[in-house]
Amino acid sequence: MVGSAAMGALGVLMSGCEKPGGGGQVGPGTSGPAECGVGDVPPGKLDTYYGFWSGGQSGEIRVVGVPSMRELMRIPVFNRDSATGWGATDYSKTLMGGMMSGDTHHVHPSYKDGTYDGRYIYVNDKANARLARIDVQTMECDAITAIPNAQGTHGIFPQRKKTGLVLCNSEFRSPIPNGAAGAKEDVKKYAAMHTAIDGETMEVKWQVMVEANMDICATDYQDVYSFATCYNSELAPDLEGMIAADQDRLYVFNLPLINKAIADGKGKTIGDSKVPVLDARAKDSPYVLRILIPKNPHGVNVDPTGTYAICSGKLSPTVSVVEIGKLADAFAGKIKPEECIVAQPEVGLGPLHTAFDGRGNAYTSIFIDSVVTKWNIAKAIEAYKESGGNAADPGVKEETDPDKKPKPSTINPIIEKIDVNYQPGHVNASMSETKQADGKWLVSLCKFSKDRFLDVGPLHPDNDQLIDISGEKMSLIHDGPQYPEPHDAVIAFTSLFHPAEIQPRKTGRFKMYEGWAKKDGVTLLKDSKIVRSGKNVRVYMTSTAPAYSMNDFKVKAGDRVQVILTNLDNVEDLSHGFCMSNHDVMMVVNARDTNSITFDVPNAGVFWYYCPWFCHALHLEMRGRMIVEA
Amino acid sequence: MVGSAAMGALGVLMSGCEKPGGGGQVGPGTSGPAECGVGDVPPGKLDTYYGFWSGGQSGEIRVVGVPSMRELMRIPVFNRDSATGWGATDYSKTLMGGMMSGDTHHVHPSYKDGTYDGRYIYVNDKANARLARIDVQTMECDAITAIPNAQGTHGIFPQRKKTGLVLCNSEFRSPIPNGAAGAKEDVKKYAAMHTAIDGETMEVKWQVMVEANMDICATDYQDVYSFATCYNSELAPDLEGMIAADQDRLYVFNLPLINKAIADGKGKTIGDSKVPVLDARAKDSPYVLRILIPKNPHGVNVDPTGTYAICSGKLSPTVSVVEIGKLADAFAGKIKPEECIVAQPEVGLGPLHTAFDGRGNAYTSIFIDSVVTKWNIAKAIEAYKESGGNAADPGVKEETDPDKKPKPSTINPIIEKIDVNYQPGHVNASMSETKQADGKWLVSLCKFSKDRFLDVGPLHPDNDQLIDISGEKMSLIHDGPQYPEPHDAVIAFTSLFHPAEIQPRKTGRFKMYEGWAKKDGVTLLKDSKIVRSGKNVRVYMTSTAPAYSMNDFKVKAGDRVQVILTNLDNVEDLSHGFCMSNHDVMMVVNARDTNSITFDVPNAGVFWYYCPWFCHALHLEMRGRMIVEA
Repeated sequence: MVGSAAMGALGVLMSGCEKPGGGGQVGPGTSGPAECGVGDVPPGKLDTYYGFWSGGQSGEIRVVGVPSMRELMRIPVFNRDSATGWGATDYSKTLMGGMMSGDTHHVHPSYKDGTYDGRYIYVNDKANARLARIDVQTMECDAITAIPNAQGTHGIFPQRKKTGLVLCNSEFRSPIPNGAAGAKEDVKKYAAMHTAIDGETMEVKWQVMVEANMDICATDYQDVYSFATCYNSELAPDLEGMIAADQDRLYVFNLPLINKAIADGKGKTIGDSKVPVLDARAKDSPYVLRILIPKNPHGVNVDPTGTYAICSGKLSPTVSVVEIGKLADAFAGKIKPEECIVAQPEVGLGPLHTAFDGRGNAYTSIFIDSVVTKWNIAKAIEAYKESGGNAADPGVKEETDPDKKPKPSTINPIIEKIDVNYQPGHVNASMSETKQADGKWLVSLCKFSKDRFLDVGPLHPDNDQLIDISGEKMSLIHDGPQYPEPHDAVIAFTSLFHPAEIQPRKTGRFKMYEGWAKKDGVTLLKDSKIVRSGKNVRVYMTSTAPAYSMNDFKVKAGDRVQVILTNLDNVEDLSHGFCMSNHDVMMVVNARDTNSITFDVPNAGVFWYYCPWFCHALHLEMRGRMIVEA
Repeated sequence: MVGSAAMGALGVLMSGCEKPGGGGQVGPGTSGPAECGVGDVPPGKLDTYYGFWSGGQSGEIRVVGVPSMRELMRIPVFNRDSATGWGATDYSKTLMGGMMSGDTHHVHPSYKDGTYDGRYIYVNDKANARLARIDVQTMECDAITAIPNAQGTHGIFPQRKKTGLVLCNSEFRSPIPNGAAGAKEDVKKYAAMHTAIDGETMEVKWQVMVEANMDICATDYQDVYSFATCYNSELAPDLEGMIAADQDRLYVFNLPLINKAIADGKGKTIGDSKVPVLDARAKDSPYVLRILIPKNPHGVNVDPTGTYAICSGKLSPTVSVVEIGKLADAFAGKIKPEECIVAQPEVGLGPLHTAFDGRGNAYTSIFIDSVVTKWNIAKAIEAYKESGGNAADPGVKEETDPDKKPKPSTINPIIEKIDVNYQPGHVNASMSETKQADGKWLVSLCKFSKDRFLDVGPLHPDNDQLIDISGEKMSLIHDGPQYPEPHDAVIAFTSLFHPAEIQPRKTGRFKMYEGWAKKDGVTLLKDSKIVRSGKNVRVYMTSTAPAYSMNDFKVKAGDRVQVILTNLDNVEDLSHGFCMSNHDVMMVVNARDTNSITFDVPNAGVFWYYCPWFCHALHLEMRGRMIVEA
C-alpha cells in the first residue's frame, strides 16, 4: 500500500482531482470511487472552454463544456422541440416555415480579426438548404435563411476579419432552374451554387454557379478567398461515376472580384429568386480557380497563421497543402493552379478533416484507419521539396517517365497516430479555427461506437472522444456517447462568449410581441387581458412563481386561442412554461421572457393549463382552467 | 513531490483510474490531466448500471450509463425527433395521433417477482394524459395509450409480481364527463381517475373515480395495493385553496376488490369511453382507503422489503411511514386508517421523494433545504413509539391537551444530510424500487443549476448529481447538466436488460410493413419496386452501404409518395437513413430495419435523396434522384 507520507503529499498534489473518503483504490480507508471529473472538472468547477456542436440529423446545436464533455444545453434550430415549444411557438414557426427537421452539419461562430467575437453562431441545414443563426446572448436561433437554387447545402464558413459574408456550398448539383424543365435536364448540365449570405442581415447577397458539386467550405484570414472541395468533377449522378477520376478539385473563390462584379450588376437572377447569380462554369472564369486534388477530396481547413489551406483526399491517402500566398499568381495565370500545392503527405486511408495546435502541427482524422494522424506542416513541405513532388504535373506516369516520379523523402512529417473508436468524421482542436489556436484539447467525432458503450438497441450512439494534445504524446481522456449525429464542433475560450443569465428582451421576437401589445393596449410586463377578434382570442398573461396572473379564462368551442405569457420573475434560472392539457401545447418562458403559442380549441369543457417547469415548492399547484363554453 | 516508489505503487493501485503520461498533477513527467472517468469509468470501460431517465418536457426517455453519467441514447416517445423521424414516420405518426409534444414524468421498467424483467419500460405523458411503452429489445416506443376522462396524468407505477396492471393517477380533477355541461360544472364536483392499463396489451382495463386530485403513485410488492398521494383534499381550483388544510391524504386502492367488482360488471362507462368506471367518491367506499397525511404530500415510495409506503409531506417537514401489513385491518374497519402510520420523522423543509439502500436506510429529497436526508427507517419507528406519536389522533391540540402531545424522542433517526445543487425533485438509488436495492449509487435530479455550469443563456440546464452511498458518508461524485427536465430516473443492473444490437424485426411495426408488402407483392428484405395507386406512390427500396438500390425514381407533381426503405446491412451500428432534400423528410433505418415515411410532392423538378447517417467512406456519395415530372 502507499505509505501515509506519500498519501499526505497526494492530498495536496491531487487537488484538481480530489478523492473523498480516501478515494478509489488509493490508500487506507477507501470507501468510494474518485470524485475526479473528466479533464479535471470536479463537481462545482466550471469548464474552461465552450464547445459548440452541430447536432447533425437532430437538427439542433449542442453546447458542451470542455474538457468535462458535459452537454450543457441543446439549442433547437431546425427541429421541433417539445420542451421549449420550438417549432410550435409563434416566432419559431415563422422562422421554420412549417418544417420540423434538419441536418445541422457545420457550426461556426462569427469572427473579428481572426478570432471569435462572441456575437453569433452560424449553422447550416444540409437537408433543406438553409442557414440559421444563433444569438449568443440568448443562445436562441434568431434567423433562418432559405437558400435559393440549392440542394444539399453542406460546407459553410464565415469570413474571419469581421462579421461579413457566410459562404455556403451546394453539395448536390441540380437543374438550374429546377422545375418541369429541370426534370428533363441532362444531368451533365446540372450546376451547384456557392452562396454568400450577409452575416448581419442574414440576406442572400449573391451566388456563384459552378459546374461540379461542392463539399466542405473554408475562408482565409484576409477576407479575400473562400474554398470549396469538389469530389464529383465527373458530374456523375451515381456512385460509380463519382469515384471514376483520380483527381478532383479545390475551388477557390475570389471574393473581392465577385463582390465587384455583383456591385457592377453582372449577376443575373434565376426563376423567382431575386438573388444575383454569376455563372462561373467556364474553366477560365476569373472568379474561380480550380486546383486539381487527388481523389474525392473532403475537408478543407486553413491553418491558424492563415498561410495554408489543407485539403483531405478522402479516397487518396494524402492531404494537399495549398499555400494561400501563391493563389494571386495562379489567379493571374502566372503559375499553374497546382503550383500552389506545397506538400502532399500521406497521412492514412480516408483522410477527412484537419485541426491545428498553433505550434505548426496538424491533426487529420482518418476515417478508414480509425486514427487521428498528427503531422508537422513545415516538415511536410520540406519532404515534398526534397522528393521533388510536383502536383502541377500530376500526369506523370511511373512506368513511362520514371525520372519525373517523386522520390521518397528522408524526412517524415508524421509524428504520431492515435487510435480512435471508431471512424472519425470531423476533428477539431481548441481555438483551431482562429489565430489563437492553443493546442490543448482535440475532439474526434467518431461515427461508430460499436461495442464501446452498453447496448442501447439497434441505434448506437456516436462517440465524441476527447484527446489531450498539450503534451508530446496525444492521450485519450474521455469517450463521450452522443445522440446522432455530433457532426462538427468548435472549442472556444469561455472569455469570448457572454450569454445572458436572464432574458434581455432585445431580439426580433420582442418586436413582434410589442407590436401586438401596442395594438391591443397591453403592457407585456404587467397586464393580463383577453382580446377577442372574431374567433381569434389573444390571452395576455403573466407569471410569478408559483402562480399565473389568471386562475382561469373563458373561450368558446371553435376558437383559435393565442396565449402570450410574460414571466415576471427576474431571478436567474427561474423558468416557467405553459402547457394546455390534452391540446399538445407546451412552451417555455424563461426568466423575464415572453413567449407565445397559438392553438385551436375544438371542444367544449374544462381544460387545465399548468407550468411544466419546476419553479417553486408549490410548482404543482401552479395552474388554471381554460373553460370552453359550447 | 511524491517519491518514485509511491508512484510505482500508485501505478498499480490506480488501475481503475489511470493517469497517462504520469497524469494530472501527480509526480514527475506530468503532461496532461487525468484520464479518470466519472465513477471510475475510463474510456473503453462499460458502465455497471443502466439509468432510465424520463425527460420531462422534452417528451423523451434517456438511457444514461451509471456511474459514468454519460447519456447513451435518447428514445423519442411523445416528441417529434428530427434524427430518427419519430413523429413523421408512418408508424410513429399512428402512435402519436398527430401530437408532437409531451411531458414524460415517471419511468418504470416492468417487473417480475419484485425486480425488473427487462421487457418493457413504461412512461407517462402528464401533458396529454397518455401512457407509452418502450420495448427494451429495440429501445423503441411500441405503444401509446390515451387515457379517457383524465387530465394531468401524473404518477404511474406497474405491479411488481409480474407484468400486470400499470396504475396511473389523474392529478387534475375535471368535470366527469367533460364537455359542454362540464364547462358549467361546480368545481367541487370535479373528480379524478385512478386508471389501470394492462401492461401487456396496453388497453385501459378500468378506472376508479375519487373526489380529490392524485399525485404520485406506487404499488406494493404483493399486487394487492396501489397508492396515490393527494395534495388537494380541499377540492380547490386555486393555489390558496389547495394549501388551506393542514392534512391531505394518501389513497390506498384495493386492487383485488376492484378487479372483482369490474369482473362482476359493477363498472359504468362514461361518455364515448368504453372503459368501466367504479365511483369511489364516497368516504366509505370499499375500494379506497383514505389516510390523513400532513400537508400537501407529494412522493410515495415503497421500501425494498415491501413493508412500508413512505409519504413525503412537501409542505410538512415530515415523511409518514405507513406499514402496509396494517392496511388490511384498516380496510376491514378494525383500526383507524391513521393507525397504519408507524413513524413520522422530521427530515427537512419540502420533502419530496424517498429512495432506499437495502440496508434499512431511506434517502429523502428535500426541495426547499436543497439537501438529501439519509435516515433510518427502524430508528424512525422506534422514535415514534418512544415519543408516543399518534397520527391516528391528529386533532390533538398542544394548548388544550398538553398530555396527549407527542414528546420529543431521545432517538434521532436522521443520519446525515448532504447538500445538493439545487432544489432536488426526484432522487433514486440503484435498484431502489426493487427487492434487490444494493445501496451503491444515488442520483439527485436537481431542478436548478444556477451558477453551477457555464452560462448558456436564460434557459439553464437542470443538474443530475451522482452521490456515492456505498460508504458511511455520502459523497458527491458528479454534477451532470441535463436538458430540461430530467424528471425521474431508475438505476438498474445491466444484467437484467438485453437490448438487441441489430433489429430483430419482431415488433408491431413489422406487421404493418409486411401487410403492405404482401398486398404489393414485395419481399421487403430483397425487392425494389414502385407501386402506384392513383396519386399514391409506394417506393420500396433497400440500402447496402454505400448505396440505395435505386439511383433514381420518377413520380409526378401532386403525388403523395411513401418511401419504404429496408436496410440490408447486417452489421452492428450500421444505420442508414433517408432524407429527401427540401421536403422536410428524414428518417433513420437501422441495421436490418425497415422504416417508412409519407410526403407530398407538390412541385416538378429533380430532388436528391441522401443518406444522412455516416455509413461508409463513400457515405457522401450515397444518394439518388427523385425526378418529378409535371
